[in-house]
Amino acid sequence: MHPTTVADYQALVAHSQETHVLASAAATLAWDQETGMPKGGGDLRSRQLEALAAMVHQRSTDPRIGEWLQACESDRNLQQESDAAANVRGFRRDYDRATKLPNTLVAELARLESQAQQVWAEARAASDYARFLPSMERMVFLQQQKADCLRGSRSRWDALADLCEPGMNAASLSQLFAPLRERLVALRGQLDARGKRPDDRFSRVPFEESAQESACRAALQAIGFDFDRGRLDRSAHPFCTGSFGDVRLTTRYSKDNVLDALGSAMHEGGHGLYEQGLCAEHMGTPLGEAASLGIHESQSRLWENHVGRSRAFWQWSQPMLRSKLGLEVDGYSADDLWRASNRVEPSLIRVEADELTYDLHVMVRFELEQALLDGSLAAKDLPAAWNAGYRQALGIEVPDDRRGCLQDVHWSCGLFGYFPTYTLGNLYAAQFASAVRRDIPDLDDQHARGDFAPLLAWLRDKVHRHGRRFDPAELCRRATGAALSADPFVAYLEQKLHAVYA
Amino acid sequence: MHPTTVADYQALVAHSQETHVLASAAATLAWDQETGMPKGGGDLRSRQLEALAAMVHQRSTDPRIGEWLQACESDRNLQQESDAAANVRGFRRDYDRATKLPNTLVAELARLESQAQQVWAEARAASDYARFLPSMERMVFLQQQKADCLRGSRSRWDALADLCEPGMNAASLSQLFAPLRERLVALRGQLDARGKRPDDRFSRVPFEESAQESACRAALQAIGFDFDRGRLDRSAHPFCTGSFGDVRLTTRYSKDNVLDALGSAMHEGGHGLYEQGLCAEHMGTPLGEAASLGIHESQSRLWENHVGRSRAFWQWSQPMLRSKLGLEVDGYSADDLWRASNRVEPSLIRVEADELTYDLHVMVRFELEQALLDGSLAAKDLPAAWNAGYRQALGIEVPDDRRGCLQDVHWSCGLFGYFPTYTLGNLYAAQFASAVRRDIPDLDDQHARGDFAPLLAWLRDKVHRHGRRFDPAELCRRATGAALSADPFVAYLEQKLHAVYA
Repeated sequence: MHPTTVADYQALVAHSQETHVLASAAATLAWDQETGMPKGGGDLRSRQLEALAAMVHQRSTDPRIGEWLQACESDRNLQQESDAAANVRGFRRDYDRATKLPNTLVAELARLESQAQQVWAEARAASDYARFLPSMERMVFLQQQKADCLRGSRSRWDALADLCEPGMNAASLSQLFAPLRERLVALRGQLDARGKRPDDRFSRVPFEESAQESACRAALQAIGFDFDRGRLDRSAHPFCTGSFGDVRLTTRYSKDNVLDALGSAMHEGGHGLYEQGLCAEHMGTPLGEAASLGIHESQSRLWENHVGRSRAFWQWSQPMLRSKLGLEVDGYSADDLWRASNRVEPSLIRVEADELTYDLHVMVRFELEQALLDGSLAAKDLPAAWNAGYRQALGIEVPDDRRGCLQDVHWSCGLFGYFPTYTLGNLYAAQFASAVRRDIPDLDDQHARGDFAPLLAWLRDKVHRHGRRFDPAELCRRATGAALSADPFVAYLEQKLHAVYA
Repeated sequence: MHPTTVADYQALVAHSQETHVLASAAATLAWDQETGMPKGGGDLRSRQLEALAAMVHQRSTDPRIGEWLQACESDRNLQQESDAAANVRGFRRDYDRATKLPNTLVAELARLESQAQQVWAEARAASDYARFLPSMERMVFLQQQKADCLRGSRSRWDALADLCEPGMNAASLSQLFAPLRERLVALRGQLDARGKRPDDRFSRVPFEESAQESACRAALQAIGFDFDRGRLDRSAHPFCTGSFGDVRLTTRYSKDNVLDALGSAMHEGGHGLYEQGLCAEHMGTPLGEAASLGIHESQSRLWENHVGRSRAFWQWSQPMLRSKLGLEVDGYSADDLWRASNRVEPSLIRVEADELTYDLHVMVRFELEQALLDGSLAAKDLPAAWNAGYRQALGIEVPDDRRGCLQDVHWSCGLFGYFPTYTLGNLYAAQFASAVRRDIPDLDDQHARGDFAPLLAWLRDKVHRHGRRFDPAELCRRATGAALSADPFVAYLEQKLHAVYA
């Protein structure tokens, strides 16, 4: 870097770090809203989050950023491979996006997101879509406005999706999804043809919540989640927030479904390991942020499924579960648990879905949110469209909105163009897992004895530490030697599920 | 109000409400730091609190406030008894103080307070004052600077104390404290002369933390704390924060001291009832804030002691405790619990002290912080001075700093001039309680059957709803018909303790 540019770059970094301080404060307040805030705190919380979002956005659109960026970008001495160049590219992307959005819209969205999420939680508990409808209508309207600010010649959905996953668009996703859907449906047919599903009685054995929680903690500890730099709580909808030294996971407990609690903990734990694995020296800059939501999801799905639903994992965790949950576990071998956790059965709830049907849930949402954004589906007609989508994609009837279009928190908190990153995550996860197995041939033996450190070290090295240095496609190529493909995912599913069903 | 002044007043209120939104966000983040933040979150949290404190202070010193205030103050149509006039007086007091403090000092203090509190918690756990000393030295230095900005011709201690309690100063406190100390010491002599202390075995019966927590919740529910607008957690040092719809209490649990957990819950519950009883329409303005720390403490001490250590309270709570804590409680009558909770015995820890010796703990701190601020006591010499003070005031030897000068969180979070408000709180509480008994003759009967609503209604009417409308002295006169005096407190103690010891 040319000496005169150094000051500009340092100003960019310092400015961004200060913005991060405010944004992270907002994240903790949003976490609190979901985990413990008393009901009466809702109004004030919405205003707090609105004020912080407005300040963050104002800082993110400070015209000085444009000047600092210009100075850095026109510096011919800036090495394209350097940390500084990677950060400058990230800053540029963020600045160009932020400056397209008016402050008033950002502030109103932040308030609405906080309010609508509270309304959603009540409406979901009461299975009452009508109660949520006014918030949903306003949310769709504001998201359309937001998309119109950003889109240029793109569709609204593409504009919002690109915020979640750089480069993602509906056309290329559809090309990826159509054959994937066919292969998943074919595999489902083969399994159904066997006539008998794996026994999943274990998932209905009742266990005290405190025992389930202690099992979740033990699993998280084992896979390397650092509780000195994070915590685990419960919430209606499991999530992970925060980074570096303060990473917060949630899971949920229902008395008669310990596999759900454990699976959610492993999933959010995967997100948490990514956040704890970012380089602390880059905190508050693009190099200290996750590469994309799809890459983020690859980490959660890898730990949830490739580890947490593997035979080796249950070999390690069966005795652990016995010590945490009690003698009832004696009635189930590691292989029983492995089969129970891999039963394929079309179901109503995405986060409880098996690995095979999971992506069908995502595809329903992918279609619906495109229609909501382009105006061809009105918010009031969402339940009917949702139910029709489930009938078609999964062949099941949705009995109520709680288990239908009210099940997910995402739209209430303004996350549109987000769901397909879950499927991308599944594909990335399978491709990473296949590369890991090449590099670490005895992975299963390690996991069977509770040693997850080599896997974590691989992910730290190939994924976590890079932050946003590479775009998702490039990161995938560097980590696995190939462009993203659905093949490793389908091969993994075929191999595992045929074994489970054998 | 003159029509042209209305806009100025409205601007003042709106500006103050927006500031309150940021200040309340900081309060929740500070609560989180004490209740659940992972250790690794400390650095970022300090920076968050520093940033928010700087913004709050910058907003509080906005020169437009001075202009708006001048317009309001020069309006001859402003009715002195009106809400607006009361708010204008409050805004003026706050603005004049805030503008005396440089932004850099406020920001540095906020960061140091967050950091020093974390260091204090570690140092206290290790009973290692040397670890805390650098933070303490810096804190005293910055507090001296702060006091110098504010003091004018006053002493440093008086300048800081006036922030806690309008009108409080060392000279008048000394006049109040000297005879009080004599009367307390005399009463202690009388009780000691009886030779036998009340049996307090109950306070050492071990109970599970979860059972203790459920007893604390039941007591808080009974006295009227609204859990839809608040919550209860655990922390190293019990405290209460927040107001209106989101009031957060903490207590602490040690297995063999349920009286401590319950007493702390009642104490913080008294603070919480005050905050829940402020007028929501005045949120974010002086009329929506507590009158002073002394008045605040009167509410906590009234519920903790005048209610929670009364014979009638134990008559109600003995069966409640049996249902929450189990059969062991059967061995103790309501009168046994009453006596156990009123045993007088010089002890090391202020928050565990009986009502008689409590104020002697405060007086030690009152002397020490004056000396720290005027420079006659160096921070490094605090442990020795502390131990000497305890030897003289309470006649006991301090075995280690954990149970000595590291026991209280206050100095680590910048609270100087604060401790004497505890003794003022005791005096106000006794004077309020004596007035309540005049107005509600069958108070004990109500409490014995678990009906605390009439007492709460009295406090809501005479204290809570007024916010900062009156200064503490005026509020006391209006509520009780007399100026503050130590007589009701000493009379209450003499009557109760002689009965307990009979």
